[in-house]
Amino acid sequence: MSEAAQTLEGWYALHDFRSIDWIAWTAADDEERGLALDELNAFLKQWQSVEDGKQGSTAFYSIVGQKADFVLMHLRETLEELNELETAFNKSAFAAFTIPAHSYVSVVELSNYMGQPGSDPLQNPEIVARLKPILPKWNHICFYPMNKRRQGNDNWYMLSMDERKEMMRSHGMIGRKYAGKVKQIITGSVGFDNWEWGVTLFADEALQFKKLVYEMRFDEVSARFGDFGDFYVGNRLTEEKVAEMLRV
Amino acid sequence: MSEAAQTLEGWYALHDFRSIDWIAWTAADDEERGLALDELNAFLKQWQSVEDGKQGSTAFYSIVGQKADFVLMHLRETLEELNELETAFNKSAFAAFTIPAHSYVSVVELSNYMGQPGSDPLQNPEIVARLKPILPKWNHICFYPMNKRRQGNDNWYMLSMDERKEMMRSHGMIGRKYAGKVKQIITGSVGFDNWEWGVTLFADEALQFKKLVYEMRFDEVSARFGDFGDFYVGNRLTEEKVAEMLRV
Amino acid sequence: MSEAAQTLEGWYALHDFRSIDWIAWTAADDEERGLALDELNAFLKQWQSVEDGKQGSTAFYSIVGQKADFVLMHLRETLEELNELETAFNKSAFAAFTIPAHSYVSVVELSNYMGQPGSDPLQNPEIVARLKPILPKWNHICFYPMNKRRQGNDNWYMLSMDERKEMMRSHGMIGRKYAGKVKQIITGSVGFDNWEWGVTLFADEALQFKKLVYEMRFDEVSARFGDFGDFYVGNRLTEEKVAEMLRV
Amino acid sequence: MSEAAQTLEGWYALHDFRSIDWIAWTAADDEERGLALDELNAFLKQWQSVEDGKQGSTAFYSIVGQKADFVLMHLRETLEELNELETAFNKSAFAAFTIPAHSYVSVVELSNYMGQPGSDPLQNPEIVARLKPILPKWNHICFYPMNKRRQGNDNWYMLSMDERKEMMRSHGMIGRKYAGKVKQIITGSVGFDNWEWGVTLFADEALQFKKLVYEMRFDEVSARFGDFGDFYVGNRLTEEKVAEMLRV
Amino acid sequence: MSEAAQTLEGWYALHDFRSIDWIAWTAADDEERGLALDELNAFLKQWQSVEDGKQGSTAFYSIVGQKADFVLMHLRETLEELNELETAFNKSAFAAFTIPAHSYVSVVELSNYMGQPGSDPLQNPEIVARLKPILPKWNHICFYPMNKRRQGNDNWYMLSMDERKEMMRSHGMIGRKYAGKVKQIITGSVGFDNWEWGVTLFADEALQFKKLVYEMRFDEVSARFGDFGDFYVGNRLTEEKVAEMLRV
Repeated sequence: MSEAAQTLEGWYALHDFRSIDWIAWTAADDEERGLALDELNAFLKQWQSVEDGKQGSTAFYSIVGQKADFVLMHLRETLEELNELETAFNKSAFAAFTIPAHSYVSVVELSNYMGQPGSDPLQNPEIVARLKPILPKWNHICFYPMNKRRQGNDNWYMLSMDERKEMMRSHGMIGRKYAGKVKQIITGSVGFDNWEWGVTLFADEALQFKKLVYEMRFDEVSARFGDFGDFYVGNRLTEEKVAEMLRV
Repeated sequence: MSEAAQTLEGWYALHDFRSIDWIAWTAADDEERGLALDELNAFLKQWQSVEDGKQGSTAFYSIVGQKADFVLMHLRETLEELNELETAFNKSAFAAFTIPAHSYVSVVELSNYMGQPGSDPLQNPEIVARLKPILPKWNHICFYPMNKRRQGNDNWYMLSMDERKEMMRSHGMIGRKYAGKVKQIITGSVGFDNWEWGVTLFADEALQFKKLVYEMRFDEVSARFGDFGDFYVGNRLTEEKVAEMLRV
Repeated sequence: MSEAAQTLEGWYALHDFRSIDWIAWTAADDEERGLALDELNAFLKQWQSVEDGKQGSTAFYSIVGQKADFVLMHLRETLEELNELETAFNKSAFAAFTIPAHSYVSVVELSNYMGQPGSDPLQNPEIVARLKPILPKWNHICFYPMNKRRQGNDNWYMLSMDERKEMMRSHGMIGRKYAGKVKQIITGSVGFDNWEWGVTLFADEALQFKKLVYEMRFDEVSARFGDFGDFYVGNRLTEEKVAEMLRV
Repeated sequence: MSEAAQTLEGWYALHDFRSIDWIAWTAADDEERGLALDELNAFLKQWQSVEDGKQGSTAFYSIVGQKADFVLMHLRETLEELNELETAFNKSAFAAFTIPAHSYVSVVELSNYMGQPGSDPLQNPEIVARLKPILPKWNHICFYPMNKRRQGNDNWYMLSMDERKEMMRSHGMIGRKYAGKVKQIITGSVGFDNWEWGVTLFADEALQFKKLVYEMRFDEVSARFGDFGDFYVGNRLTEEKVAEMLRV
Repeated sequence: MSEAAQTLEGWYALHDFRSIDWIAWTAADDEERGLALDELNAFLKQWQSVEDGKQGSTAFYSIVGQKADFVLMHLRETLEELNELETAFNKSAFAAFTIPAHSYVSVVELSNYMGQPGSDPLQNPEIVARLKPILPKWNHICFYPMNKRRQGNDNWYMLSMDERKEMMRSHGMIGRKYAGKVKQIITGSVGFDNWEWGVTLFADEALQFKKLVYEMRFDEVSARFGDFGDFYVGNRLTEEKVAEMLRV
């Protein structure tokens, strides 16, 4: 039996992807749409105040292509809060114009493959900030889930801690080259959803997603051990952009 | 031919995952919703009385994310009882506001990889209690189905009994480390549903699901031989929480 | 090229799995439901008379869980008869309250891996009875489709006839241990449906399905060469049970 | 790099599988159904006249089981003709009672693995007739798509031309044994649809499909290199049978 | 760790596949259809003027078979423009008669496996023209996504740059044989959509798609390393053809 890496966990995450029922939305009258928009705006204000109070964070992005029209990525202290938030949204007049497209449940995670022995990471304010991050307001989002492969000779979980540590170190060095260009939030989902991790990337320039993920694919940890799910990419929805998107 | 482990079976299990048709629910009037809620509460009362009489057990949890809104996990003496219960629920006014999301049919199972030779397990009241368990009222539930892999050199069913026993022993020791934190109910579904086993975990702290499943993944029996289906995670629905979830 | 086993074929089989549209069924008025039930009962009577005349056989079972609410397994002399039967049912008032859930097209098959050289199996009344079987009225049904694997070193179709014969012999011996407990009907579907075989099991005690399939899984023919599709399990629908299931 | 076999192509093929919306069909009144049937019959007449003029061919068969209710297999000179035909049908009153179930786009193909060196196949009237075939009026149809496998040591496209030629020769000899019993039309779909080939079989006795496909499965080219998609089987729809199928 | 090939990126691409809701379209009255067509034509005119201004390009093709009725392939400078374009279309009266069928998000990409060392490709007008291409008006389109395989010994991303370069060179030579017959646009989708690349082919003769893709399949880079998604094939929609397609 191989030794599991220690992990640190922070806020729980719910990625809530939804399509807009455009036929219903354009068929509704101005009053119905107005009420729905008021409810949406009230939610956005409420989630902002949670973020201002550092009790969580919410990102709101459109999604390009037919997979979804938008994603709400919520971070909260507990699974119960995420569930309440989701249920409240589901009952809203705005949600009645949306169709669930995909969701993902996970928890912000730091693995200590690169931790310093002897130090208590939770005393490190930088680490605490990474476990309970305020989501960046960058132009673009990219989300995908992933597993470490367990297949024939390519079985991550049968490698020794040292082998895994060495590969993760080289992997991390690629990530560091993109500092300032791509912000990466890793969420663990073992026991919570269908893949082992979710990866959420933010960038001001969308091309950086491609460059980072492509470069990493040649790294042994991805080349031999990475299995990837569906990719979602989108653009930040400011108040103005939301109004524009929903204007009929 | 390799020797099959002996298994003991107890109550049959039906995991019934459902989504709520929120558009219909919020569009219904108070009277319709009231009637539906009365029927739901009557079912909950009836299932509680079955549990009080030790003729079965039912757990009711919300599910986080879009896969479902809630799960009803029923344990009963026979497949017929599960079927009757399911059909009765399907005809109810409450069920008309729900959409089937997923289900799983299995039977509580203990394998005697770790059994004591010479003893009759069914004379052991502790074992009988594990075969017909009253489901715990812990805060969180986690469900996933799994197979033992049969692929190239990683073929569980071609291993000798001794090899399997040794691996299951080490696997069980991880589980034991989580005693008091995670309660695990294994149900066998060979011949009943699409995977070989269902795993239902209960915990007061949801993070323990992740820690347990992640640690086990490095164990050879999971690393080389575990194939996993979809994971569902949720929060306990007390009477109060149900009312809150469904309040419009 | 390896030699194909000779097979004998009997009646064609259609497994017709359906869900009930419970919302429509409970919303219908007594007269509509009455007409639909009359049509269903007329079909059941007609199929019984075909069975009485030994021109075919029909089994009617509920299915546990959300995959379907019931299955009609029909055996008939020709594909045309199965098609006519299916179309007639589709046009009925009862079928309008059902939703197709799954189906399987195959033909009752005996393989002569264990045949006696020199004898003509079709002169053997026992074999003829197995090719055109009257389906048993046992309490439970289990259905699943399967393939023989063709993957790397585990390629059934590259084995010699002798290797396959030896494995099938040992496989058959497990089946024989369950005589009187499980009745097994093998139907071939190469060229007819998505898997190579369908397996339909009947038992009075549902647990015997699990015991049989689990024990077989350790047999090399299943362990190395069996690929399995979805499993369906259910309870026999007598006239009384049908009335109960559909009573509102 | 291995040498590609030369292929000859003839008419384009569209397999158009559809289900009938039986609820709508039985709910329609006689006039609506009459208009829809008139349109269907006009199409059938028009397609027959195309066939009479040797500008294409159309086969019309029911499909057994829930995958579809019928298939229209059209052969035409160009993709544009197939597209126009499909669009015209989609706009008809009859099509409004159907639900698309599956389709397949391909082109009749002969590979010259067995070609005679030095001869021009297109000067051979028998070959031209096979490239632009009038579909037989046999009782049964069977359709499935397939790939040649590219997996580890079982990679068809890494074999030499000679190895492939030898295997295809032995494969063809099985086919020849079924001459007069099964008529086989191979259509290539590389670049057109999700699999590399479509296989359409016709037979008067449906059992011959099973016998042919099963025997071929033991041939190395199928055993090691054949990957198969969904199988559809059905019965010929004469004018009389169509009327019977749709009579309410 | 293997070295990643350098890539150059140009316009972003959205392939938007849609089915027409023929029942709604034929049931609409002439005025409704007229309004919808006017909106569609206004979009086509607008997209043409973007193309005239070399700010993007749009191709409009029908799709053969049931996967979709048409595809709009849009190239634009940014993901935001693609998203706005998609949303504007979704709100139109014409879109209300369509059903999303599939989409793909990517970016025009040139890899410099074949680049000249020491030269700056972006100074080369031919390369710039390939990064921001005006889509050809050829008769047919073919689209499919693909990955480079990472499986056991067939792991593209574990090969050295030299091995990959040599294979891509031979691959490119096949493509060059089809110059004038097939125009190929490669779009990269790592980080944007579910596959690593999209391939869009244009040809006046549809058979050239089959010949090119089939010939390439024997090339080691496809034979051992190519994994392919769904294929879509279609015919160019001129103004006249659109009118014909939608005429009731």
